[in-house]
Amino acid sequence: MNIKNIAIVGGTHGNEYTGIYLIKRMQRTQFQAKWNGLEIALMIGNPRAYEQCSRFVDTDLNRAFKNEDLLNIELPGYEANRAKVINQAIGPKGSSRTELIIDMHTTTANMGVTIILVNDHPYNFQLAAYIKHKLPNCFIYYTSAKSYTGEADHPFLNSIAPYGFLLEVGPIANGIVRHDILEQTSMAIGAALEFVSKTNTGECPMPTNSLEVYEHVRTVAFPIDAADNINGFIHRELQDSDYQPLQKGDPIFETIEGDTICFADEGVFYPVFINEAAYYYKKIAFSLTQKRVMKIKNTL
Amino acid sequence: MNIKNIAIVGGTHGNEYTGIYLIKRMQRTQFQAKWNGLEIALMIGNPRAYEQCSRFVDTDLNRAFKNEDLLNIELPGYEANRAKVINQAIGPKGSSRTELIIDMHTTTANMGVTIILVNDHPYNFQLAAYIKHKLPNCFIYYTSAKSYTGEADHPFLNSIAPYGFLLEVGPIANGIVRHDILEQTSMAIGAALEFVSKTNTGECPMPTNSLEVYEHVRTVAFPIDAADNINGFIHRELQDSDYQPLQKGDPIFETIEGDTICFADEGVFYPVFINEAAYYYKKIAFSLTQKRVMKIKNTL
Repeated sequence: MNIKNIAIVGGTHGNEYTGIYLIKRMQRTQFQAKWNGLEIALMIGNPRAYEQCSRFVDTDLNRAFKNEDLLNIELPGYEANRAKVINQAIGPKGSSRTELIIDMHTTTANMGVTIILVNDHPYNFQLAAYIKHKLPNCFIYYTSAKSYTGEADHPFLNSIAPYGFLLEVGPIANGIVRHDILEQTSMAIGAALEFVSKTNTGECPMPTNSLEVYEHVRTVAFPIDAADNINGFIHRELQDSDYQPLQKGDPIFETIEGDTICFADEGVFYPVFINEAAYYYKKIAFSLTQKRVMKIKNTL
Repeated sequence: MNIKNIAIVGGTHGNEYTGIYLIKRMQRTQFQAKWNGLEIALMIGNPRAYEQCSRFVDTDLNRAFKNEDLLNIELPGYEANRAKVINQAIGPKGSSRTELIIDMHTTTANMGVTIILVNDHPYNFQLAAYIKHKLPNCFIYYTSAKSYTGEADHPFLNSIAPYGFLLEVGPIANGIVRHDILEQTSMAIGAALEFVSKTNTGECPMPTNSLEVYEHVRTVAFPIDAADNINGFIHRELQDSDYQPLQKGDPIFETIEGDTICFADEGVFYPVFINEAAYYYKKIAFSLTQKRVMKIKNTL
């Protein structure tokens, strides 16, 4: 494997400032020079949403990269157009010059450093395993197009290129930066580029042959009232418990009136994105994953 | 002192959901009936901003209550008009039917439960002292019109009535609710209404004759670059250190390039609203207060 063309993107969501600050820092501090042999493009995903301190202007940019939408020039919104510009700059999806993309995000959920993979290429799991070797507390979350949308084509920016990941770090409020979240994000990126550099030069850093992966299952909605408004909040026992097991009978919500609502499904799930601000408008309270241990093949 | 007419307001800032959820809870759970003898009006301050999950639509509603602005019917913005509606409903400012207002806010800063007083009426300090007796970890922050704006007239919603306070609880991200922040907010309100009920019936609950008060001095701006953009973030030693002493030589910022900027003023200050998301658009990084111990007179 020899990966040369890399894109690092920040501010795909305009109110997630961490990635934007890090792009600025990389631009101003000879970041490229540190990674001899790699061509690293640096990009602000959604500059207009950043100006407005909003997640997006018209629609979520990180759901705008399905082939069908990239080909449809009649879609009028800001993000539908911005996606085409990004696809032109670092794509095109399916035959992109860019081989590996790191798309930096943050979350209000207590998800620590989470590496989100959007396809099951062995190189990506090897890369994730290396990052976890360097940052043992990080989590690997796999969300295929099929599990995420039920369709074959993935809507994320990351789907432009075959390799790379979406980096999700939290908890942090939208519209601010914090030293610790900046640092964790930087460390994950450093580990990723170190892995790419090593594999490029024939080194074969395989720290493990198995990897704990949380695989997306489905989202869970907030309770609603008769007027279709959210009618509750995350129960104290679930709040901040991302990646902790959840099973039938565990309390998940407290309603505005004070009633407790419990989880009703059979099986053991691992919730993520618990109380993510960005999903309130869709009335999503959290997502469910299942944990599995994957064998990592050495294909380097 | 006999206070009967009270207003509790939530969502004066539309993306601070805690107060809005508590207003809904109070409306649905016979809250009024618990406080026999008090007439409690419940109100969502900025319903349009809440729909949009934004702090405000056109301008900050909690800066719209200067007499001059309340009298100027030519001001076109949503909040300039909404302020007049609120002033009509629970005011009018200067001769309001409502004697006491509690305006519920949240902050991304690590300020715990903070009671913000906008005037120096002895009753308000007595009320604050009682709340601190019930919630020993809370802080009292006094921000007079003069210290806050340099003018004699206060722009906050609270300035409609002579008594009451702005309740600021954090840290919490905008656009979400959390069980713990809801609970702390409820407890502070419960303590306040308990004090009012007791003083109304001739009880004289004076738990202390002195009170630690943090008095507003001024705001501190983020460093900026040549293009007038924020060029740094809160230093790790200052982040989350609200109400901790700050003096000359203490690091306060790290620039995007990695340089440290230190505090340069003589004297000891106590910073608050450190890294508050709502102030980034004004490029404000935090506010400075000075601590003093006030004697509390018993005028009940």
